[in-house]
Formats: sequence, C-alpha cells, structure tokens
Amino acid sequence: MKISIVKIGGHLINSAQSLYDSLEAFCKLKGYKVLIHGGGKKADFISEKMGISPKMIQGRRITDKETLDIVVMTYAGIINKNIVSILQSYHCNALGLCGADGNCIQSCLRNIKNIDYGYVGDISIKSVNTDFIKFLLKNNIIPVLCSITHNGTGDLLNTNADTIAACTAIALAKEECEVELHFCFEKKGVLRNIHNSESYFQKINFHSFQKMKENHTITNGMIPKLENAFFALQNGVYKVSIGLPNHLNDVNNKTTLCL
Amino acid sequence: MKISIVKIGGHLINSAQSLYDSLEAFCKLKGYKVLIHGGGKKADFISEKMGISPKMIQGRRITDKETLDIVVMTYAGIINKNIVSILQSYHCNALGLCGADGNCIQSCLRNIKNIDYGYVGDISIKSVNTDFIKFLLKNNIIPVLCSITHNGTGDLLNTNADTIAACTAIALAKEECEVELHFCFEKKGVLRNIHNSESYFQKINFHSFQKMKENHTITNGMIPKLENAFFALQNGVYKVSIGLPNHLNDVNNKTTLCL
Repeated sequence: MKISIVKIGGHLINSAQSLYDSLEAFCKLKGYKVLIHGGGKKADFISEKMGISPKMIQGRRITDKETLDIVVMTYAGIINKNIVSILQSYHCNALGLCGADGNCIQSCLRNIKNIDYGYVGDISIKSVNTDFIKFLLKNNIIPVLCSITHNGTGDLLNTNADTIAACTAIALAKEECEVELHFCFEKKGVLRNIHNSESYFQKINFHSFQKMKENHTITNGMIPKLENAFFALQNGVYKVSIGLPNHLNDVNNKTTLCL
Repeated sequence: MKISIVKIGGHLINSAQSLYDSLEAFCKLKGYKVLIHGGGKKADFISEKMGISPKMIQGRRITDKETLDIVVMTYAGIINKNIVSILQSYHCNALGLCGADGNCIQSCLRNIKNIDYGYVGDISIKSVNTDFIKFLLKNNIIPVLCSITHNGTGDLLNTNADTIAACTAIALAKEECEVELHFCFEKKGVLRNIHNSESYFQKINFHSFQKMKENHTITNGMIPKLENAFFALQNGVYKVSIGLPNHLNDVNNKTTLCL
C-alpha cells in the first residue's frame, strides 16, 4: 500500500487563496493520501478577539484551559471543516478528524519538567491508530487530521502537527506501507539564504543537516521540522520532502531529504 | 438493521454534569446508534466574548459570516470533539462529523423570501448520505453529528439539529432500517403544565397535537420539535420519543408519540 502524507503549514492556511491552491494540489496527488494541518494565525486572531493574551514561558507557548478551548475550536472546528468542505467541492471524499475521532491518535499529557506546558499531548509511533487510517483509505475516504489529540480519558490535548505527520508516516511505514511524507509550506524548500526565495537546497542529507545546525545555516522553526523529517526517514519512511504545495507532484523544485 | 437516533438538546450540553450523564446513558443503549447534537449556550458565550451581538430579525436568529464562523467553531469544534473524547473514554468508538465529512449531509442555502437568514442550510430526506452512515455503523463506528452541513460547493451552513435528526431517521427508515428516534432534553417529556416537571404526557397522537397547538397547551420551541417528530413518524420511523436522556432505555417515563 503506497500512501502520501501531506502536512500543510500555518502560512498556507492563513490566506484563502493559498489554502485553495494547496488543496487543489493535494487533490491532484494520485493514490492513497492523508492530509495533516496545523493552525495558522486564526487561533491568535480568535484569542485576541476574545481578549485572551497568549501565555508564553521562555518563548514557548503554554496551552492553558482557555487556550485549549480556542485551539480545539480553531483547528478541529473552523479550519478542519473548511478544508473538508473545500476538498468535497473538488470531489475529494475528505473526512475531518481530531485524535479522538475513531480513537485516531492517543497522546499523553506532557510531563512537567522545568516548564508546565499545560494541555499539550506528546505522541509516539504507537499512538497512531493505523488500522483505522488504513480502513478509511481502503474505503476511498481521505483522512484530514488536525493537530488535536486525546488522552483516552476524556481530555483533548494540543499536539504539534509536524510530529503528528512524522509519527503517522512512520507508523504506516512499519506496517509494510510505502510512505512518502511531504511538508508543504510557503517556500520552495529549505533556503540557504532566507532572503533569497530561490536559494533552496535540492537535497539535504543527515550529515549536512548536522553541519548546518552547527554553523547556523538553518535556525529556529526549521530545525524541529527537519528533525521530524529525518526521524521519519530513519524509521522507514520511503521519501521525505519540504516545499511548496503546488510542487507536490514534481520530483524537483523542492528540498528532498536523504540519510 | 435496527438503529437508534438520539438527539441531545442544548441545555444538556450547557452543564458538564448533564452532558456526562447524557453520554453515559447513550453508551448504554444497545445496538446501532447515532448521536446528533445542537449547540447550547456556548456559541452565545463565545459571540459575547468576541464582542459580536446576535443578529435577530422578527425574533429569528440570522447567521451572518461572523456568526457562521462561531457556530462552526462551537458545534463542529469544541462541543463535537468534547463529546467524542468523552464517548471514547467510555469505550464507545465515536466519530465526530459535520455534514461535509464524508459528504454526510448536503444542504441548500435557504431561499430568501421575506427574511434573509444568512448562512442557513435547509435539508430534505435526500440530503442524508445513508450509505456512509450505515457503512460506519456496520464497522462499529458511532457517528456523532453536529448541526453544521455543507452545500457541496465549499460552503458550510448552519442547520437545525432537530431537522437533521428527523431527516436522518427517515432516510434510514426508507432503506428498510427499523429506526427509533429519541429527542432528549432536560425535561421528562412534553409537559401539560410548564411549571410542573412531573406533568408530562405519556402519549401524544397527531390529532391531540393539532388540538394542543390550537388551544396553546404547547407553544414556542416545542411546536417545531413535535412537528419534526410527527414528520418522522409519518415517514416510516418506527418509534419517536421525547424525554430525559437517562430514560433512553426505559419504555415509560417519557412522552411517546403515535399517529
């Protein structure tokens, strides 16, 4: 069973046009596929409108109860359902899911070490209900997963969408599936020079990734994304790429990762 | 195929305790079952927090774009996903759905006659994707439907939950299913005297319903609910009742409708 896992990033969700374009490209992808999305700026916008300021400790966002409600409403509600309704209009038989739906992804509340991150759920490869995902795919239903999971005892938890994408890809790869994982965002790939949108790497291997971390060629949010990407490659995922959604069907014009 | 369709009303959703009790009762119901829920006061609370006042014309709520976003977030987001995670904690394999998911329920934007209701979707019996609902049930998945539908061209629409319950029940009954429809709310049944919670009718037939409308024994919100209920009975639904969720498994202690 060959499966494409596509993660679309927040910036693509923020603009209606880029969201439509991303979903159109996703529809054109042949074969079994799963869409995973994060949140974008919508949750910040809603928080702000509700007079709730983001809680940050050491630069990291804290999901308190109010924030959890907002991310559930936003990710599993407005964003997920808009995506599903747009996909349905393209005759792509999408089904929106959070981790609680069909017990799709079960997580554990993050342990408090130095920082209490609040209602954040950590997942592993075993968290993914691959039977359910394969059952949907085999019945021509396309899962659209948002980054909300559950702990199995009645609580919803906020989980990183890139991690969900990587763990889902690995879990399926461990069951003899040939899995491709595509991280789609608003750039052509991982950039050498952040000010030059054409300066993307065609290929990055694990050794060069380590070097680039050391010499600060790549920084900030790209590091955990690449870590998730290499984690997937190291655990049996067949192919991992990072780039624009409209290059999903294109073997070039994006950054391909290799070990 | 014998199926129970359970609609839980807004007041049951407003309090955490009554929601837990309702879902526990739903879990105990034997056989194939579908849960349908409305919105409760949560959407009003969120609107208020966001500084958006409800738009009313001639006492009827208007769903403008801002209000649509709020009901989608609330019904398909926080309420639906909380219900699903609680049901999962009771080992009830729930799957949350809005009408767009799996193209479950397609609606038409309400025609503008005297009033423009905005983003409101009207449905008929043909709107319900019975194949999909039966497919889920046969695979031991319990559909949990919120009152958001889609028009098939990418728009989400706000739809009355009682009407979704009635149309879903009828559509399944038309396909040789033996369907029971239970409208659960915070009272023991349809009351003779609104100030006496014990004064519920054991049975109401269509003729007595017409009489009660004429002499104003029943008024306001109960009339459309009973109209939906009789519409279901007149169209092949085997049994329709109105009462408390913890009397779901009880043949007495509620109002049973008959033709």
